[in-house]
Amino acid sequence: MDTTVKTMGKATVITSAELLEHWQGHRGLTRRVIEAFPEKELYEYSLGGMRPFGDMVQELLAIAVPGIRQIAGGQTEALHEQLEQAKTKAGILRLWDEATAELNKYWAQVPDEKFQERILAFGQYEGTVLSTVLYFIDNEIHHRAQGYVYLRTLGIEPPFFWER
Amino acid sequence: MDTTVKTMGKATVITSAELLEHWQGHRGLTRRVIEAFPEKELYEYSLGGMRPFGDMVQELLAIAVPGIRQIAGGQTEALHEQLEQAKTKAGILRLWDEATAELNKYWAQVPDEKFQERILAFGQYEGTVLSTVLYFIDNEIHHRAQGYVYLRTLGIEPPFFWER
Repeated sequence: MDTTVKTMGKATVITSAELLEHWQGHRGLTRRVIEAFPEKELYEYSLGGMRPFGDMVQELLAIAVPGIRQIAGGQTEALHEQLEQAKTKAGILRLWDEATAELNKYWAQVPDEKFQERILAFGQYEGTVLSTVLYFIDNEIHHRAQGYVYLRTLGIEPPFFWER
Repeated sequence: MDTTVKTMGKATVITSAELLEHWQGHRGLTRRVIEAFPEKELYEYSLGGMRPFGDMVQELLAIAVPGIRQIAGGQTEALHEQLEQAKTKAGILRLWDEATAELNKYWAQVPDEKFQERILAFGQYEGTVLSTVLYFIDNEIHHRAQGYVYLRTLGIEPPFFWER
């Protein structure tokens, strides 16, 4: 009997530790994109009626730590996108760095088997813990790429996408 | 002894089958973004000196199937981004759908244990099979999000990001 075929698609391809490393790699790149924005444009510049990049970053901050804290602790959290400390570029970078450490802390409290459990993130988004975490990461890549277009149209070279 | 702590971060959080489903979900959304572009703008419209979205889609086509075929078969492939059949919107959508089926076919030939092996994708990008596949997916999310900004500035509502 060919056990290779039997187990295809069932074994580990990503561990929890690798998924966290992947996300933190993306978060490091997002930090460099924030840094690339002049302060004024971070909060005021936009295209096509979309939000300024600073607002998108506040969404990312509102999702990452509160989202993982809910997964780790089970308490439903609310989405708070308007933080007083995020109103300056230095403040938003400080919040970003604090979130990096917090994310590591709460991630370590999520047991592997929990990734297949169903949750209602922020009391409204249904999925497994895994699909929820992947969505958080994808959402960050998505909005950061919109920041890339903002930077390009401002004549600013964004950081290389492949550098993590 | 607490075996929960010992195994933390080591067990499966994503299987190969889930990763393929995740990617194909993204590919379905990218297809709807291609469809949302008027034919002329797909090939001619751009912002900030970037490529038109049609060129980005050709890059995605050049990466997905040839990339997974290399992983499945071991033969190094070259990046061919300029395909004659991709010069019309109907043609690019047909190539997209063919790639969807091919991707499923070659993915099924990649054994789970291969995801940790090191490869040189397209003869030039070093990493594990896993990091390479994640890069392919992230790169698609990144360029698609740039297509979202193009659509918004054209006054066209893009598909919802969360619909897969």
